[in-house]
Amino acid sequence: MTVSAPAAVRVEVEGSTAVLTLDNPKRRNALSVATMTELTAALRDASARDGVRAIVLRAEGPAFSAGHDLSEMVDRTLDEEREVFAVCTELMTTLHAVPQPVIAAVQGVAVAAGCQLVAACDLAVAADVAVFGTPGVKIGLFCSTPMVAVTRAIGRKRAMQLLLTGETIDAATAADWGLVNQVVAPDALDGAVRELAAKVADASAVTLRIGKEAFYRQVDLPEDAAYEQMQETMATNAMTCDAQEGMSAFLAKRAPHWQHHE
Amino acid sequence: MTVSAPAAVRVEVEGSTAVLTLDNPKRRNALSVATMTELTAALRDASARDGVRAIVLRAEGPAFSAGHDLSEMVDRTLDEEREVFAVCTELMTTLHAVPQPVIAAVQGVAVAAGCQLVAACDLAVAADVAVFGTPGVKIGLFCSTPMVAVTRAIGRKRAMQLLLTGETIDAATAADWGLVNQVVAPDALDGAVRELAAKVADASAVTLRIGKEAFYRQVDLPEDAAYEQMQETMATNAMTCDAQEGMSAFLAKRAPHWQHHE
Amino acid sequence: MTVSAPAAVRVEVEGSTAVLTLDNPKRRNALSVATMTELTAALRDASARDGVRAIVLRAEGPAFSAGHDLSEMVDRTLDEEREVFAVCTELMTTLHAVPQPVIAAVQGVAVAAGCQLVAACDLAVAADVAVFGTPGVKIGLFCSTPMVAVTRAIGRKRAMQLLLTGETIDAATAADWGLVNQVVAPDALDGAVRELAAKVADASAVTLRIGKEAFYRQVDLPEDAAYEQMQETMATNAMTCDAQEGMSAFLAKRAPHWQHHE
Repeated sequence: MTVSAPAAVRVEVEGSTAVLTLDNPKRRNALSVATMTELTAALRDASARDGVRAIVLRAEGPAFSAGHDLSEMVDRTLDEEREVFAVCTELMTTLHAVPQPVIAAVQGVAVAAGCQLVAACDLAVAADVAVFGTPGVKIGLFCSTPMVAVTRAIGRKRAMQLLLTGETIDAATAADWGLVNQVVAPDALDGAVRELAAKVADASAVTLRIGKEAFYRQVDLPEDAAYEQMQETMATNAMTCDAQEGMSAFLAKRAPHWQHHE
Repeated sequence: MTVSAPAAVRVEVEGSTAVLTLDNPKRRNALSVATMTELTAALRDASARDGVRAIVLRAEGPAFSAGHDLSEMVDRTLDEEREVFAVCTELMTTLHAVPQPVIAAVQGVAVAAGCQLVAACDLAVAADVAVFGTPGVKIGLFCSTPMVAVTRAIGRKRAMQLLLTGETIDAATAADWGLVNQVVAPDALDGAVRELAAKVADASAVTLRIGKEAFYRQVDLPEDAAYEQMQETMATNAMTCDAQEGMSAFLAKRAPHWQHHE
Repeated sequence: MTVSAPAAVRVEVEGSTAVLTLDNPKRRNALSVATMTELTAALRDASARDGVRAIVLRAEGPAFSAGHDLSEMVDRTLDEEREVFAVCTELMTTLHAVPQPVIAAVQGVAVAAGCQLVAACDLAVAADVAVFGTPGVKIGLFCSTPMVAVTRAIGRKRAMQLLLTGETIDAATAADWGLVNQVVAPDALDGAVRELAAKVADASAVTLRIGKEAFYRQVDLPEDAAYEQMQETMATNAMTCDAQEGMSAFLAKRAPHWQHHE
């Protein structure tokens, strides 16, 4: 099923997977305010659809995304600049807020806010030709919002290296550093991502919703506070119909049947 | 010296090392409430023994631990489910609370709360045949308490991969990701762990107690707060007899003699 | 230009890079209170110089630094011990506080507070013969202040391994774990570090100042709080002359000209 597409983001639903495509290759999928707003809306729409249990974020052209649209940031007021980054943060937090896992499929250059987008997705698969970086320092605009997501993905020294040198790393290095989960040949990317999405979408929608929400709730807490919250999350998760069915099926060595699972 | 063993956990003390063995191979060392309670008590007992300066946690059979005992979690009340996870958290926090370093010796499958157990130990050595994972998503029960320990050991993207796919990783990958410290051939596991335990137990008991307690106290603090606390910890540590002896011995190029060290 | 050198720290300014050299090889560049005080002052002085946009921290002799001067810590009062660690924390926080990136050039042994020094620098390059460790446990003085920086660089299990065993790791392992950014042959170290410093110093001083300050401000915050702060940081960064120039130059495909950049 193909859904009516806005200008810069194309949305398709394939079974249990919604595929969002950044489709402005001539602009290297620059994250203009309009594109970020569209993508945020597309994420929310896709996540509200019945039967969608995984979301893929992919892109057309040689670049996954080259980051912000600089032409929108020259000769502006401070409030106009603030608007750009407020819309950007809204997009990044929406990636965490939608209940379905979001998987980035990175076919090419992902830099600055484009790299942030990859870091903010729950999972990421990259073509071996993809490159990653936070080169804002080279144009006088340090990648301070991208570094929130990037530092939390790859750690301090490596984040500093990307931020201070502005250099890019290749896909193999990105996998080694934990920025992406898997690297494949370019022509294997779509297949690998769909396979990963299908595997994720095999799970109960209720379980994915509980788990993803819990992940981001616990990740920044001190360990004791995290345990206190997660113990209650697991206990209530265990009381859901899908957990009771899943545990019973496991004990009976049969496949589980999730509620409302098509 | 062999100590009287409770049903599912065997305790032996070998010199300065206490060895705790999960000994319910038929149930794949499932972490039933009874087993977790026993293991927590065994940790406390072992840690209270004179001369014990390292604790090894190992297991019998093909599985290190397959996680919670699902038969205890079907058709229960919310309070009964809460009991399971409260007892589990008590076990995991006890691993951090005992003053001796705890070393996991992982000979086989360590999944769900079994993987959490490995992540929660201070150090871990794995046989090359061991596998690790958080497959709860497959039975409708997201591994929300395991993810507290696992995320903090291996980082966000990799934790999400284990949590959302339910797939396992092999021992080499676990070492590459920082979940275990060392991988050895299966028949070298016991030797490698005993060697590591002996090396750790070479240290002063007072120093190990100060250091392990300090580690978990600082690890979740903002850096400035961590320094503020650790500066005081080091200053008081430096005033202990064992530190004064250790520094004096080092300056005199002789071996140190720790207090109460057998 | 060579600046008058204090006893244990030599300072040279080479173009846009200040080079600080620990120059007490006979004492293995031990971090005595006097040396730490000198180094802190040298960092502040170097950072206040016109045109300095990168700082290199290197050392003479076989050791980068063997850590604290133990002779200062035997037979002292608690207040004297406190003084040692207060001065040490002042040094480590100054490394983060100076607006220029600080790059460690590690030619040899970096242990205890010497390893902390490497971990606390923004970037680090090591000779392949360098070794790293936190061996305080062997002398009864757990490396509790070094572990603040080391744990945050390499993660929990690996930090625990260094702390509890007291063993050292080689440079390749340090790079694999994220403690250093790059490993080179010993005779290539100075060249590699100068090249890295020159690359960093290519950036606008204003941008580096904004970015480094922002990095350490966001790194320990929960993600939402980090985004809230960084969005404002990026918006105000975008309003600076150098960012407006950088973006305009990029859009016009010409090289940027930074203010006050020599």
